[in-house]
Amino acid sequence: MRPSGRKTDQMRKVSFERNFSKHAEGSCLVKFGDTHVLCTASLEEKTPPWLRNSGKGWVTAEYGMLPRATGDRMKREAASGKQSGRTQEIQRLIGRSLRAIVDLEALGERQISIDCDVIQADGGTRTAAITGAFIALHDCLKWMEARSMIKVEKVLKDHIAAVSCGIFASQPVIDLDYLEDSAAETDANFVMTGSGGIVEIQGTAEGKPFSQEEFLTLLGLARNGIDELVALQKQTIA
Amino acid sequence: MRPSGRKTDQMRKVSFERNFSKHAEGSCLVKFGDTHVLCTASLEEKTPPWLRNSGKGWVTAEYGMLPRATGDRMKREAASGKQSGRTQEIQRLIGRSLRAIVDLEALGERQISIDCDVIQADGGTRTAAITGAFIALHDCLKWMEARSMIKVEKVLKDHIAAVSCGIFASQPVIDLDYLEDSAAETDANFVMTGSGGIVEIQGTAEGKPFSQEEFLTLLGLARNGIDELVALQKQTIA
Amino acid sequence: MRPSGRKTDQMRKVSFERNFSKHAEGSCLVKFGDTHVLCTASLEEKTPPWLRNSGKGWVTAEYGMLPRATGDRMKREAASGKQSGRTQEIQRLIGRSLRAIVDLEALGERQISIDCDVIQADGGTRTAAITGAFIALHDCLKWMEARSMIKVEKVLKDHIAAVSCGIFASQPVIDLDYLEDSAAETDANFVMTGSGGIVEIQGTAEGKPFSQEEFLTLLGLARNGIDELVALQKQTIA
Amino acid sequence: MRPSGRKTDQMRKVSFERNFSKHAEGSCLVKFGDTHVLCTASLEEKTPPWLRNSGKGWVTAEYGMLPRATGDRMKREAASGKQSGRTQEIQRLIGRSLRAIVDLEALGERQISIDCDVIQADGGTRTAAITGAFIALHDCLKWMEARSMIKVEKVLKDHIAAVSCGIFASQPVIDLDYLEDSAAETDANFVMTGSGGIVEIQGTAEGKPFSQEEFLTLLGLARNGIDELVALQKQTIA
Amino acid sequence: MRPSGRKTDQMRKVSFERNFSKHAEGSCLVKFGDTHVLCTASLEEKTPPWLRNSGKGWVTAEYGMLPRATGDRMKREAASGKQSGRTQEIQRLIGRSLRAIVDLEALGERQISIDCDVIQADGGTRTAAITGAFIALHDCLKWMEARSMIKVEKVLKDHIAAVSCGIFASQPVIDLDYLEDSAAETDANFVMTGSGGIVEIQGTAEGKPFSQEEFLTLLGLARNGIDELVALQKQTIA
Amino acid sequence: MRPSGRKTDQMRKVSFERNFSKHAEGSCLVKFGDTHVLCTASLEEKTPPWLRNSGKGWVTAEYGMLPRATGDRMKREAASGKQSGRTQEIQRLIGRSLRAIVDLEALGERQISIDCDVIQADGGTRTAAITGAFIALHDCLKWMEARSMIKVEKVLKDHIAAVSCGIFASQPVIDLDYLEDSAAETDANFVMTGSGGIVEIQGTAEGKPFSQEEFLTLLGLARNGIDELVALQKQTIA
Repeated sequence: MRPSGRKTDQMRKVSFERNFSKHAEGSCLVKFGDTHVLCTASLEEKTPPWLRNSGKGWVTAEYGMLPRATGDRMKREAASGKQSGRTQEIQRLIGRSLRAIVDLEALGERQISIDCDVIQADGGTRTAAITGAFIALHDCLKWMEARSMIKVEKVLKDHIAAVSCGIFASQPVIDLDYLEDSAAETDANFVMTGSGGIVEIQGTAEGKPFSQEEFLTLLGLARNGIDELVALQKQTIA
Repeated sequence: MRPSGRKTDQMRKVSFERNFSKHAEGSCLVKFGDTHVLCTASLEEKTPPWLRNSGKGWVTAEYGMLPRATGDRMKREAASGKQSGRTQEIQRLIGRSLRAIVDLEALGERQISIDCDVIQADGGTRTAAITGAFIALHDCLKWMEARSMIKVEKVLKDHIAAVSCGIFASQPVIDLDYLEDSAAETDANFVMTGSGGIVEIQGTAEGKPFSQEEFLTLLGLARNGIDELVALQKQTIA
Repeated sequence: MRPSGRKTDQMRKVSFERNFSKHAEGSCLVKFGDTHVLCTASLEEKTPPWLRNSGKGWVTAEYGMLPRATGDRMKREAASGKQSGRTQEIQRLIGRSLRAIVDLEALGERQISIDCDVIQADGGTRTAAITGAFIALHDCLKWMEARSMIKVEKVLKDHIAAVSCGIFASQPVIDLDYLEDSAAETDANFVMTGSGGIVEIQGTAEGKPFSQEEFLTLLGLARNGIDELVALQKQTIA
Repeated sequence: MRPSGRKTDQMRKVSFERNFSKHAEGSCLVKFGDTHVLCTASLEEKTPPWLRNSGKGWVTAEYGMLPRATGDRMKREAASGKQSGRTQEIQRLIGRSLRAIVDLEALGERQISIDCDVIQADGGTRTAAITGAFIALHDCLKWMEARSMIKVEKVLKDHIAAVSCGIFASQPVIDLDYLEDSAAETDANFVMTGSGGIVEIQGTAEGKPFSQEEFLTLLGLARNGIDELVALQKQTIA
Repeated sequence: MRPSGRKTDQMRKVSFERNFSKHAEGSCLVKFGDTHVLCTASLEEKTPPWLRNSGKGWVTAEYGMLPRATGDRMKREAASGKQSGRTQEIQRLIGRSLRAIVDLEALGERQISIDCDVIQADGGTRTAAITGAFIALHDCLKWMEARSMIKVEKVLKDHIAAVSCGIFASQPVIDLDYLEDSAAETDANFVMTGSGGIVEIQGTAEGKPFSQEEFLTLLGLARNGIDELVALQKQTIA
Repeated sequence: MRPSGRKTDQMRKVSFERNFSKHAEGSCLVKFGDTHVLCTASLEEKTPPWLRNSGKGWVTAEYGMLPRATGDRMKREAASGKQSGRTQEIQRLIGRSLRAIVDLEALGERQISIDCDVIQADGGTRTAAITGAFIALHDCLKWMEARSMIKVEKVLKDHIAAVSCGIFASQPVIDLDYLEDSAAETDANFVMTGSGGIVEIQGTAEGKPFSQEEFLTLLGLARNGIDELVALQKQTIA
């Protein structure tokens, strides 16, 4: 029995609030239950140094948590003077995931910076961030298309979404909330495209090692969840 | 004529959304027009080192902006490794302002940390932050009172609110938005209590120096605006 | 009764020692009683990036305290790896104050960096710094005029000086020393030009809030004090 | 055809040089072909703060590269003042992997710090580091057993080893060297125990997404490779 | 011919101004010609962690330069966020030199922190700092003796002073000023006690290597100079 | 009697292992007994900013220690976020020493970066580093000569080597190991060229001051030791 009463293959209620931010070229407040992440996409007419004169653009991401997004207040990273290893790991993951579905040549020599800021956390912030960042990125590209800078269909090759799965109380379950996450024996994050390709898999045994069979069950759960998320994305941007 | 069409003594629409955050002991999303600041109050059973065994508590504040809260994306302070001078100046102001209406002995040896995070900026973030932080602080104290830790009426001595005034296009106006703020000749922030006492005054000539008369006009505008804000706070927590 | 025996409207003995430094284009050791600040003005043939090709120059300031300028030794900021919020707040104030009386176009694309280093502290270091920095800046401009780079009268629009006032033992007094500053109920810093314009006002209630009347009394004291300081500046550079 | 001429399921020559360091309680220079990593295990009679008085110990890891371990010289992290996101990600992975096979209660309130320093890099430094760190950890525990501090068989629950697999030139291959790694379409790292349990899986599509079938092929390659590595570990410590 | 017209064995005019600082337990403004260093000694009732409960005290030093102490303005170390290698090297040298003449057991479990801040630089700042720091340290110990904390004669075992010598225009000369220092072929710093013992020698070939004979000539010059400095110290504290 | 049983003028066994690193243009693992330092020379087609368009090149050095190179594990400098004063002092010494024997004009506008990383420490790491760095530098220059970039004989003016000497148990001894180093009364490092010129002398009294005679004895020991080291270098690169 899951603490939330959900079925093992049941995700939390997911919603996307587009245009949450007045200033950003694209933005989305994504909610996976009580996990709320604000994703903004900022277009910048510059590229990282190693891409200058390459004809290619770049998509990068940064991740942060408000200090009281969590049950106990966490130290503000700006005040402690550095981003934690966890923060860096997550923002690298978000960036890689988004670049997997973007044609960087079609984007041209520009950078889109995705900021994913967790307003409230209840487990699964990185997977919510990736899923919501897709909407922000899409809307930024639409903004550019409206200004004849690019064609969205040339730049955006597919959908991208992510979900966590894990083994909680010996049961494979999808979309772990904080209570489940803290007690899970195995925790895995999956990032997949709309057409079912796998972009990232990260599986970690928190307690005892897991078997190939268990892992395949998690992968199956994830595949269904991501199908749902992509359907919801499509409906949102339709 | 103000860019927003407001009258010189007309504030933007102000609203408080209490309990915005699931985890914090007190929280409030305050909006001054398009300026949106999330204020959370976190109770911590510790005090700064210099207050140990003094019987007194502490109220402190931190301030941050999401990178794309502004028209152009700003560098994330956590990534650049330090808080700007502006950030530190503002968070010191918020902390001082709140301590002015708190009886630190009645609070007891505990710390309340107020986090003010700007979700969207359109001028006046520091004054919105102070005004909204009052609600978060109040609700945190209520939470404590419900657990018999303190009496709110003993700890909270008064209301506190803040507003900016300035001279824009040679006219004294209240509650400057970003367009006005960038072009103002003089910019002043006022922090006052519900009973009309002045807690902080910060006036800066951005262009030519200002006169005592001009300053008194701004002060008069501020007094009226703060009366309105306090009335709204009272209605909110009633 | 003030600890120093001064009258409520009596400033400490103020002196300026010009050309204190052999290397700087302008320099001044300013003393407000036992508060001693070395101000140097350094001409640099560069501007901040945002002014390149604008035809305008810049005046900026940095502030520091020797570790044992104070009663107890303070940690060296260079060793702790960052400037405190207080330091940044003060150096931003000094820079803004000086820019208020400089015609940045007449200066041309150059930067003058003012360093204000507190050799000995006894309250009022920021106001002494601003008042002394004026002399250093003036002498730097004279140095430039002697090399036909600018006309002082075109660049320097007015005098600038500053003084603190506060309510100590229920009495409004001017130019607080450390003993008064630590016990003051209200503390305010005023920066004004030679022609009486106000450039900066910073008033803070340290204990109970202050009233408009009290504030106006402090402003009146400041006005007289700054008149004295400007007279002394004029005599110094005559 | 692999650049090294290896077969798709053929690992590089792997060797362990025990007791490489005179001072460490356990140490091992591990070589996966031209990738050389020095692993040392340091026993410290302290634990992280959150474990004090818990009766449990801790195993942690740090990772570094000598600046010229790579084809082009990389900036020294100590000189640039921080560890990169990649470094932090890897050292967190190594620590988690080792803790998966250690009984922290049987270890007692002590910390073992594993340092993995890459002397020469040719792809697969993190997997070599995990595999070599096992030997260093084992030898440190043996050192402790010789001093009657613990029983190795109580503390060390299993073997742990790691290998990378990837899709290179459309072929699934094991143990990628640098040339393969830079050109791989998919790159995955697997960490498994001696008894075949999975501890970590990290799969990343560098170019186009990968399918479940491809991933299972990589997992099969990894399983065989890790069996070989564990056999070699057993032979080494026999 | 030396740029200053001095003879090869002639030092600059040296002076000590005691009690320069109102707050410090001991202080001295030392001048070696145009090199001016403010040395303060601060007594702190604590010791570094590694001396706790050892019965021993500690003497440590920090060194800094005001940004415009030099011909060109240097970046403020507090603003750039770290002390340069040169600064650290110098402050370690000053600390070692002073500890060489202090009986740390007779001092008791206390720390004396010596701050050497260069107000104006014209070569030889580190040797001036050591020589002046002796006076500040002495006066701090006198302050302690007046409070019956220690006996100066038990704590202070000898005098300590320092001078630079170098080969300039093929001539061995003493006490190099900036012009000489920048052009010297060899540069050496000597720290010696009042009784002629050598505490530190640092010799560096800036251009071509130097011979043993040249080095001995420099050592001879230094010995005479340090005799003069110690005589002047004695006269100062008499 | 020395702890190692060596005679007072007997160095530890010294060896050079060339081409230790696959990637570096020149590399050498130097051993002075149990002190092992990996020196790599990296050619970079750039110069420091102050040498641009000067026709001159540069040789610089960085120094580091693996955390468990020492008897107790030391904090990793990359993790603590800065290089210690000791590290910076040593790497500045290595750089100066190497530049003393290089004709920077003959090198041309390029930089050679020498990394000296201590794999295992037993006293004398800086002198071993300098002595081994010569081999790495030489081999890097040979690599360049093979590509017709320079002539080694034009760039490399002499050999350079270094050794420590000290007074241990009242006896002047050469090449102190860690046990001697920790207990030495005087510790001196000497850097000399193959033709006997002195490049650096650093002598420090750890306990009581030393006399000129003692210092000359140490210098004599060093001269013989460096002759041996240079002979060994010649044999190595023959």
